[in-house]
Amino acid sequence: MLDFEKTGGLIPAIAQDFETGEVLMLAYMNQDAWEHTLATGRATYFSRSRGTLWVKGETSGNVQQVKEIRIDCDADTVLLKIEQVGRAACHTGHISCFHRVVSKDGQYNVVGKPVFDPEEVYNK
Amino acid sequence: MLDFEKTGGLIPAIAQDFETGEVLMLAYMNQDAWEHTLATGRATYFSRSRGTLWVKGETSGNVQQVKEIRIDCDADTVLLKIEQVGRAACHTGHISCFHRVVSKDGQYNVVGKPVFDPEEVYNK
Repeated sequence: MLDFEKTGGLIPAIAQDFETGEVLMLAYMNQDAWEHTLATGRATYFSRSRGTLWVKGETSGNVQQVKEIRIDCDADTVLLKIEQVGRAACHTGHISCFHRVVSKDGQYNVVGKPVFDPEEVYNK
Repeated sequence: MLDFEKTGGLIPAIAQDFETGEVLMLAYMNQDAWEHTLATGRATYFSRSRGTLWVKGETSGNVQQVKEIRIDCDADTVLLKIEQVGRAACHTGHISCFHRVVSKDGQYNVVGKPVFDPEEVYNK
């Protein structure tokens, strides 16, 4: 159903909070990650840095429960509407990975505060 | 500021309706598209199929006025909060390119109706 070949085996997957509509993160899926997500109801990506399947939250406990899955018109992007356990999707502790607003001159400012301390979550 | 090199010169850019929060589409930007977007306030992508800059709406008139730009924590994805002129971002006439909902068995259903007739918009 999805066209993994167009982009060399990986397609982008957007995670959006199913209640607030906030866009939380973007990661990538290969065929295995897609099938694992469908089968388990937990958002599963492919980690480009580690080269392995990545069940989001397996380290932090902040898993993503999938409420709805959508695909786009040319079947090369996934949109997951999810419930984010622990509120924050970002490894920085921010709710969204998209917590930097860019101004017209190309500078950026961080908006919002982290809701957890990454040191406590990842090094406990 | 953005890391175009990690993904070979193109990074994904998500367009989200700035009022409703609906995710409308995902396309790609190269450095030129990024700078054109910043300079003009109109969402500009790089068309992978045509190999050229793509000012969204240049054919249909349905341009995207950029209200806010965000970048993610590792600076390899863009989130545009936009006003979609003509309501629909998708070339099919649907408001969102993500108008297909996938069920657990991997089938999908189209949700919503097109708000314009693509034949009239693109072949006039």
